[in-house]
Amino acid sequence: MIKRRRSKSIRIGTVTVGGNAPIIVQSMTKTDTRNIPATISQIKGLAERGCELVRVAVPDQEAAAALRKIKTNSPIPVIADIHFDYRLAMAAIESSVDGLRLNPGNISEPENISKVVRAAKEREIPIRIGVNAGSLPKALKPYASKAEHMVDVALTQIKLLEKLDFDLIKISLKAFDVPTTVEAYRQIAAKVSYPLHIGITEAGLPRTGVIRSAVGIGILLFEGIGDTIRVSLSSEPCEEVDAAYEILKSLSLREHGPTLISCPSCGRCEVNILKIATAVDRHIKSLKKPATIAVMGCIVNGPGEAKEADVGIACGKGKGVIFKKGEIIKTVKEKDLIHSLLIEINSLSMLD
Amino acid sequence: MIKRRRSKSIRIGTVTVGGNAPIIVQSMTKTDTRNIPATISQIKGLAERGCELVRVAVPDQEAAAALRKIKTNSPIPVIADIHFDYRLAMAAIESSVDGLRLNPGNISEPENISKVVRAAKEREIPIRIGVNAGSLPKALKPYASKAEHMVDVALTQIKLLEKLDFDLIKISLKAFDVPTTVEAYRQIAAKVSYPLHIGITEAGLPRTGVIRSAVGIGILLFEGIGDTIRVSLSSEPCEEVDAAYEILKSLSLREHGPTLISCPSCGRCEVNILKIATAVDRHIKSLKKPATIAVMGCIVNGPGEAKEADVGIACGKGKGVIFKKGEIIKTVKEKDLIHSLLIEINSLSMLD
Repeated sequence: MIKRRRSKSIRIGTVTVGGNAPIIVQSMTKTDTRNIPATISQIKGLAERGCELVRVAVPDQEAAAALRKIKTNSPIPVIADIHFDYRLAMAAIESSVDGLRLNPGNISEPENISKVVRAAKEREIPIRIGVNAGSLPKALKPYASKAEHMVDVALTQIKLLEKLDFDLIKISLKAFDVPTTVEAYRQIAAKVSYPLHIGITEAGLPRTGVIRSAVGIGILLFEGIGDTIRVSLSSEPCEEVDAAYEILKSLSLREHGPTLISCPSCGRCEVNILKIATAVDRHIKSLKKPATIAVMGCIVNGPGEAKEADVGIACGKGKGVIFKKGEIIKTVKEKDLIHSLLIEINSLSMLD
Repeated sequence: MIKRRRSKSIRIGTVTVGGNAPIIVQSMTKTDTRNIPATISQIKGLAERGCELVRVAVPDQEAAAALRKIKTNSPIPVIADIHFDYRLAMAAIESSVDGLRLNPGNISEPENISKVVRAAKEREIPIRIGVNAGSLPKALKPYASKAEHMVDVALTQIKLLEKLDFDLIKISLKAFDVPTTVEAYRQIAAKVSYPLHIGITEAGLPRTGVIRSAVGIGILLFEGIGDTIRVSLSSEPCEEVDAAYEILKSLSLREHGPTLISCPSCGRCEVNILKIATAVDRHIKSLKKPATIAVMGCIVNGPGEAKEADVGIACGKGKGVIFKKGEIIKTVKEKDLIHSLLIEINSLSMLD
């Protein structure tokens, strides 16, 4: 149903971003990059969770050198995140990273950027032009909005790269403010065909950050904008990956494990639906195969939703009717509801 | 920046929905409605959290009768949620509720609906025509999509109410599927001018449900569609209210307490930003006044974001610079960061 914007595709290591490729989920390590074992371990955990690209901060030359070992041991492509000093980008390229992210807000000297671009071109390493609202260069002319300023900064850098005959480009334009972010991406999407990395920056703790990210990223994805996403949360990075997949699943843009449909419960409900839903959720977290499970409290929407799910239950007073692939398969007493439901879920052979 | 759809306004008790009114946050009780003290207590908790309208399920006549006492003790308007039996709607009106929700999927007999509408008209009680994808009547003609079926069911009921010269109408068209929900609301928004209640139904547990709700409700609100929202979660109802406000805040449609901007941390960060952000978040939860607080890990986006916040901190190695209303006010050591930051937050006199 969503018509995706037509973007060029680029290859970051083994992963294609843009074009007809699925929307790629990425995250960033939060370890000290110079701590090689800790960083590799975090990347492995992220990859296990479904992360497909990982970015690693490169604050100094020691971190840049550490990238070689990190990259060798990473199951997913590694992108070096560079600010302020172009020499760190040169060193990261030497360490064989799969991609670079440069912030034009703090690396703007054309001569230095040219050096990086030439080295990247030689090794076919894509560069993300990563603009952030919090680190914009001083505006040299008046802009109608912060979004316009962000877009202009990106376009200036894009032109510089294009002049050097470099087109392995990806772009991001992140702000904390959702309308600003959406406006910036809409503008750039209309002006260039490079793939876009989208996200809401500094979205905060999971409690509020997943909501802000879901609103901003969701609006853009629904408009067909975005080739790779990162949810930025002040938390363990695996939570970023989980949230990213939930956003993509909600728009049917990616499949990723089972999906739980469960009613909010109300004064009509005669079983403890929150308890049943929580038990089912805990169980299906470890399952990998896509499937829909409906846990419904009453006969209002229960049979309708349960019938459309792969496995569903519509509860009534002290009992529940279990549906499988649209058919009623049995009626069970309240005390057996969870047990019977989990058996049917397992029988979908979703276990890998 | 968001241009809201022009809708008619209606009054539900003391609350205006539609027109130029702010987007109203609502929830639903999960207690047994016949348990009057438990229901009143839950409503008071919801109101305290910022809930502005509350819906209560009416599964039987005893619940309908209980509404009188519930309504008398409720600090916010009470809406009776009716399915299957129009006589429960008649009894709820007798109990002086402020609004009704009827499901045309299971109350469709025109004669019975007419009785309810006449009684509601006499007392100026608005009726929400609440269509759910899980409880649609059988399709009597082919539809291009489930969304079109939902819209057609709503339009049929709207025409019936209009024929009875009743226009205190609100409409909802909820599905679990986000694209279906968005399509349904877009269609109805283009066809009628009644206020719209929006939400994603049976969105599941908070972990995934807030994300699905934020995507669906966020897309609609950003298009200017929606006059009142409910986030449906399998959880304590107060979590629905918190999530609703986060969605509205992310689009600058409502203010509601302080907002935390915090960076996700990365290999560049030299303080424990997650610990600082968590401490600040815990502290500001009890504050009521809107304000932005930025907790930033390094000098990349730190000074930029901290400067724009009401209070912000940009950390470096073993220390942090505190900003207030755009000015640097002091530099503090890492061990004093949280303490100093909380003092500055308190000094904004956000405490009610």
